[in-house]
Amino acid sequence: MQKKLEAYLKSRGTSVEKALLRLVQRRGRAAIPFLSPMPESMKKSMRYSLMAGGKRLRPVLVMAAAECRGLDGMKVMKTACALEMIHTYSLIHDDLPAMDDDDLRRGKPTNHKVFGEALAILAGDGLLTMAFELAAENAADLKLSGSNAAELVRVIAAGSGARGMVGGQAADLEAEGDGKRLMSDGAGARAKKALEYIHTHKTAALITASLEAGAVLAGAAPAERCSLREYGRSIGLAFQIVDDILDRVGDKSKLGKRGSDLDNDKLTYPRLYGLDGSRTLARRWTAKAHACLKPFGNRAEPLHWLADFVLERDR
Amino acid sequence: MQKKLEAYLKSRGTSVEKALLRLVQRRGRAAIPFLSPMPESMKKSMRYSLMAGGKRLRPVLVMAAAECRGLDGMKVMKTACALEMIHTYSLIHDDLPAMDDDDLRRGKPTNHKVFGEALAILAGDGLLTMAFELAAENAADLKLSGSNAAELVRVIAAGSGARGMVGGQAADLEAEGDGKRLMSDGAGARAKKALEYIHTHKTAALITASLEAGAVLAGAAPAERCSLREYGRSIGLAFQIVDDILDRVGDKSKLGKRGSDLDNDKLTYPRLYGLDGSRTLARRWTAKAHACLKPFGNRAEPLHWLADFVLERDR
Repeated sequence: MQKKLEAYLKSRGTSVEKALLRLVQRRGRAAIPFLSPMPESMKKSMRYSLMAGGKRLRPVLVMAAAECRGLDGMKVMKTACALEMIHTYSLIHDDLPAMDDDDLRRGKPTNHKVFGEALAILAGDGLLTMAFELAAENAADLKLSGSNAAELVRVIAAGSGARGMVGGQAADLEAEGDGKRLMSDGAGARAKKALEYIHTHKTAALITASLEAGAVLAGAAPAERCSLREYGRSIGLAFQIVDDILDRVGDKSKLGKRGSDLDNDKLTYPRLYGLDGSRTLARRWTAKAHACLKPFGNRAEPLHWLADFVLERDR
Repeated sequence: MQKKLEAYLKSRGTSVEKALLRLVQRRGRAAIPFLSPMPESMKKSMRYSLMAGGKRLRPVLVMAAAECRGLDGMKVMKTACALEMIHTYSLIHDDLPAMDDDDLRRGKPTNHKVFGEALAILAGDGLLTMAFELAAENAADLKLSGSNAAELVRVIAAGSGARGMVGGQAADLEAEGDGKRLMSDGAGARAKKALEYIHTHKTAALITASLEAGAVLAGAAPAERCSLREYGRSIGLAFQIVDDILDRVGDKSKLGKRGSDLDNDKLTYPRLYGLDGSRTLARRWTAKAHACLKPFGNRAEPLHWLADFVLERDR
């Protein structure tokens, strides 16, 4: 399985990166004809963060979800790239001095370290906006019905916006440095609730939106969308639990950092459930993810691999 | 005319503000059902800037453009609010310390002064994302075809993104403090080109997108869209020229500030064309705007008023 997954991720990742590079700097006719190409500085800053590596998990999920319904993954490439652009914009804004104030991301200087804060903010804004442009184009290319085209934009906005990912980041800010107080009621029930809200929104929402987007593009029926949505929530939460575990016990040389959550009095799964408890939880969500894929039979094979990958990764 | 316009703007502005308040804090079912309402802090921050006043020019333009095609303006309210959300997000991000570093906006403390920088960045991100959600909903409500629904999202993204408004902001950053150098070739041709790029993108692009959005929602034909687009570009540029003139000679008590452009070695119309030259330019663009409206006859009356308002405003 491991080998097959690696080959799959590599081939998909390469296609996605080629498409990202092409789409972010294309000049073609804009929807408003008198607008000229974007400034060079803008293009460089957007490209820098887009091409800075990463697992390309979200675009791969868009493609894999479409394939569960028998639609060629390459046909949803614009939306796949849109989801990666949203992920990238969220990292650029997250790294800003006013937010997490990170100098490095995946071993490279963060966007604002290279281009300055102002351009980093604008590059993030530009990527988020371009994502919706690409999704809309994809809907038109595939001749989606009006209601499906609208639904595509709605699920992406819901997953990434104030009721989704951005809301999760705001909740994370609210809870920051507040771990002790939130845990002060005996069983930590309030802390557990806050933690689940944060991660459902901050991480699982965009992963789910990726799957739903692929499903809508492929014309999935409501029951199929529901299965993919629950799969998305499950691997999203498993992903975050594993992240928290790795922050505590992972191999520092592979992760680039470790233990930063503890320093910040952050709510984490190991803190609330213990290490063993967290591992059990992650396994339980992964089992649920596999179960959600039943209706799709063999077509869902890559999604099965990805669920195991999320659980077993070491960085 | 003046009185009619005031009544029109007031009644439209009130409807828009009611809708904005309702839409930004509605709880209803999200497109991804397991996502919960947004955090209180997020909602407060978004609402604060949305409800901080302003001329509500962009939403009024969306409605007026739809009415040129005989569609009731109230039917495009969600998109009207979407354009105001995009305008508001751009102001929040523009005011940040890393950008213009403004403490006041329309006489009130700026978003980051009240909620902190991190939440201000997120509130901007949330508003931009919500805008696309609302536009998509509007397309579905009006049962637009797939290609029109996609086109609606595309024009809004084109006007606000890296090839539109955000690109204009980046170009503005590039030119900042660079006025002297740009003007150093005899006739200032490079400076004039840079100035037109900046304002076509920074201001006119989103105004144009507002008109195009209204037109697409109302099923306008390509020729009609072209007329409204050129009208948008014309009043957008007139708007910016008047802004620059007011910064030089306007009534400080009405504007809240004056002369700030000169201090910053900024490229402005009065600096490049002189005050009289700038006034002539603004009148010329306004005349063009009026001419663009011919095909629509009486239905375009409010757009005629708005063109004159842009030219004659004193704040």
